[in-house]
Amino acid sequence: MAYPGYGAGPGGAPGMQQDPLYGYFSAVAGHDGQISADELQRCLTQSGISGSYQPFSLDTCRLMINMLDRDMSGTMGFVEFKELWQALNGWKNTFASFDRDHSGMVEGHELQQAISSMGYNLSQQAMNCIMKRYSLNGRIPFDEFVACCVRLRALTDQFRRRDTSHNGSATFQYDDFIQVTMSI
Amino acid sequence: MAYPGYGAGPGGAPGMQQDPLYGYFSAVAGHDGQISADELQRCLTQSGISGSYQPFSLDTCRLMINMLDRDMSGTMGFVEFKELWQALNGWKNTFASFDRDHSGMVEGHELQQAISSMGYNLSQQAMNCIMKRYSLNGRIPFDEFVACCVRLRALTDQFRRRDTSHNGSATFQYDDFIQVTMSI
Repeated sequence: MAYPGYGAGPGGAPGMQQDPLYGYFSAVAGHDGQISADELQRCLTQSGISGSYQPFSLDTCRLMINMLDRDMSGTMGFVEFKELWQALNGWKNTFASFDRDHSGMVEGHELQQAISSMGYNLSQQAMNCIMKRYSLNGRIPFDEFVACCVRLRALTDQFRRRDTSHNGSATFQYDDFIQVTMSI
Repeated sequence: MAYPGYGAGPGGAPGMQQDPLYGYFSAVAGHDGQISADELQRCLTQSGISGSYQPFSLDTCRLMINMLDRDMSGTMGFVEFKELWQALNGWKNTFASFDRDHSGMVEGHELQQAISSMGYNLSQQAMNCIMKRYSLNGRIPFDEFVACCVRLRALTDQFRRRDTSHNGSATFQYDDFIQVTMSI
């Protein structure tokens, strides 16, 4: 499979091999240049991106792949991996700025502040739904924070594509609604 | 809190105490007559409803509560517990009828057949999204099967409420869309 922007498959493009991220990716990607959820989990753990936080669960890795899986293959190429890496670093910095005591957890109200700081404009009711879904005894670990960010971004992207008049309203057919919501 | 259909709080109504399910429920519900996700997990494990299958994960228990949590409390009363119990028994029977070798797993195409047998009318593309999301190496364990059924039922219910013309099409405002999709 050719990578847009690189013009060649994995291992073929000199530019790709110079990218430091390619080392983490190629170590697990194998010959097809694609990684599955369990390979992504291994890759992210080895890269140390979680820092002192718990490594990502397989479920969160599956969500990450689905968020960016435009060809619906269930796997991820290097271009998507780079996009994910960038998003993950942003979320990690946001999380760290609210996790002031470095406990690896943020409080419910901090999750809400974090979501607002990322530019999402949500009602208190929507924030409550999210806090209820992702907190355990009122606190949210890094892995769940990322799962929340992945879903919020993917669902917002999907909504925006259907909000063709850009007025904050979108019409879904039932089958399309199930595809969008059950895959992420 | 009064229970609709019983007219009394927990422990107050003789009819409720005669219900065999009430034993499982009241053992974990405590004085407030409500159970949280970790209490539901304990309750379902003790009831043996999973049979020889793995007990439900905390995440699946959280989904179950959110599916029926009409007052958005994050907890579940006895009436909702009974409704869940009935749904769970249906899903368990469906799962068992496809898990012919009693491995505790069904194949991707069997998940598809199970979903159709429950009356959902979905395209092959929607089925593929669901199979991709819930299968691990092409197989789906009981816990994930139930998580899938819980979400499919809750999302379909929410869609139906907004499909006021009953023509398979529903319009969502962004904030409402996020509330529906991020909580289940």
